[in-house]
Amino acid sequence: MRDVVIIGSGPAGLSAAVYAKRAALDVVVIEKEPFSGGQIVNTKEVDNYLGMKGISGFDLATKYKEHATELGACFLEGNVSKIDALKDKIKVELSNGEVIETKNVIIATGAIHKKIGAENEEKLTGSGVSYCATCDGAFFKGKDVAVIGGGDVALEDALYLSNICSKVYLINRREALRAAKSVQEAVFARDNITFLPNYTVERIEGKFKVEKAYLKHTINGEGKEIDINGIFIAIGMEPVTDFLKGVVSIDDNGYIIASEDCRTDVKGIYVAGDVRTKRLRQLVTAVADGANAVYSLEEDDKLYMVQVTEE
Amino acid sequence: MRDVVIIGSGPAGLSAAVYAKRAALDVVVIEKEPFSGGQIVNTKEVDNYLGMKGISGFDLATKYKEHATELGACFLEGNVSKIDALKDKIKVELSNGEVIETKNVIIATGAIHKKIGAENEEKLTGSGVSYCATCDGAFFKGKDVAVIGGGDVALEDALYLSNICSKVYLINRREALRAAKSVQEAVFARDNITFLPNYTVERIEGKFKVEKAYLKHTINGEGKEIDINGIFIAIGMEPVTDFLKGVVSIDDNGYIIASEDCRTDVKGIYVAGDVRTKRLRQLVTAVADGANAVYSLEEDDKLYMVQVTEE
Repeated sequence: MRDVVIIGSGPAGLSAAVYAKRAALDVVVIEKEPFSGGQIVNTKEVDNYLGMKGISGFDLATKYKEHATELGACFLEGNVSKIDALKDKIKVELSNGEVIETKNVIIATGAIHKKIGAENEEKLTGSGVSYCATCDGAFFKGKDVAVIGGGDVALEDALYLSNICSKVYLINRREALRAAKSVQEAVFARDNITFLPNYTVERIEGKFKVEKAYLKHTINGEGKEIDINGIFIAIGMEPVTDFLKGVVSIDDNGYIIASEDCRTDVKGIYVAGDVRTKRLRQLVTAVADGANAVYSLEEDDKLYMVQVTEE
Repeated sequence: MRDVVIIGSGPAGLSAAVYAKRAALDVVVIEKEPFSGGQIVNTKEVDNYLGMKGISGFDLATKYKEHATELGACFLEGNVSKIDALKDKIKVELSNGEVIETKNVIIATGAIHKKIGAENEEKLTGSGVSYCATCDGAFFKGKDVAVIGGGDVALEDALYLSNICSKVYLINRREALRAAKSVQEAVFARDNITFLPNYTVERIEGKFKVEKAYLKHTINGEGKEIDINGIFIAIGMEPVTDFLKGVVSIDDNGYIIASEDCRTDVKGIYVAGDVRTKRLRQLVTAVADGANAVYSLEEDDKLYMVQVTEE
């Protein structure tokens, strides 16, 4: 039986692995892909991990993985299909039929940004197409950008970017915005934000980087072309929790409910990173979660061990 | 008027500076010492900052400072003596009489570990004397160590270290332990923890690293010598909040009360890092706080700006 199985090898999972190995725990990290790092792997430049200005996402992921590996963390490629929380252990089932028994599980599976489905969206991701204004906004100082979406995140991104960029288009497929009234008012008070309601983005263009977007009016079907250097897509995220149905409590948006201590409502199951209910999904907050999850696990384990002794 | 004044240039303050500059805010970092980095500056080796295994604290602090500097953060040496939170601005007073006006303040002044006052304690700090088991425990794999203290933290440190080290002495100046009963039971259930009640540490010895500690019995005055490689002092911390009396709410132990979002109970004042009420005081959680504090500040600022527009 393992001390802890970590599901996911993004920044949260790797940080948890480092903390678990440092605490002399027997740890296995299960990763879906044949490489570690999660979302950052596809990020051209990461500028918000303190101490490593302007590093490529791939290089950063490599350093993260090396750190965990050097401390002796064990990695296993596989796809978790099911978790069974029994009275005295947790069973982690992989889609190939393998079953790993463990005292604890840390879920660090992350969340996937929803795509708008525009032509060249994937091709230009990391080259002007971004899903995180807080992460990438600073690269567009003095430039023109578009934000896609009508919820709180989209409008907050537009406000954030309007301080940095020259011009911000806010593009929403509907007339009505879903964001809080106060945030809407803040957006409309900004001179450099232009609201384009009832438009979808059909195609993004650019040789090496984003240069243009082709929009289509959702009511009259008319086309529109805008010159932009960046396009920030903020139409929501999908936390990866499909293998967890009914095991731990999940909020209305699909995130696993836990506070800063990363404890779920099931003994022995912890959650770290983007898949947790939290406000700010960033590299540094994911890394902090990894530490907090292991700390809680250890705290719970100690007390649990005493109870066993008493029986 | 500045957008934000950050008080303290440890990991929390520098991370806040990076996030604030990336958000195009006008930021000044006030630092007490002529160098940045806070506690880590005096740490020989840092092994728990993901991606930078085994870096010296000084080198890490230098990288942190460079990151903030390259993004354009402005640093000011000075000692904050007072903060005045007025209706429409905050005044930050330095002990030399200087006054800086700002819209927001992020307090990142950290906390200082209490010393036991033993001979050579300071000399051997970072060479076997440590104030953080979670940070440094992994360096003492298979070795003998002592933990000083009788509260929850001391006993939890002893438990943590007992998984890593060969032998752990738990030394307390009194017979009675203050830690929770459940934690005490867990300690007494461990074979490799030896409790030495009614002892103080008089002297720590070692040429380059800790080799021995000389104890004194607090009742009969008898001396005792133990061979150890590490000594973990866990007799409490003193958060640095002397300049804040009456401004923001502080808990019984002197920490500034705020949850993960780093908002204090005063508009425009945020708190990040060890000085905040939190469970796990680590480099990575301090860095995460820096990001969260700036995020909250921006969120509040936007709404505030709308209110101003409406007047």
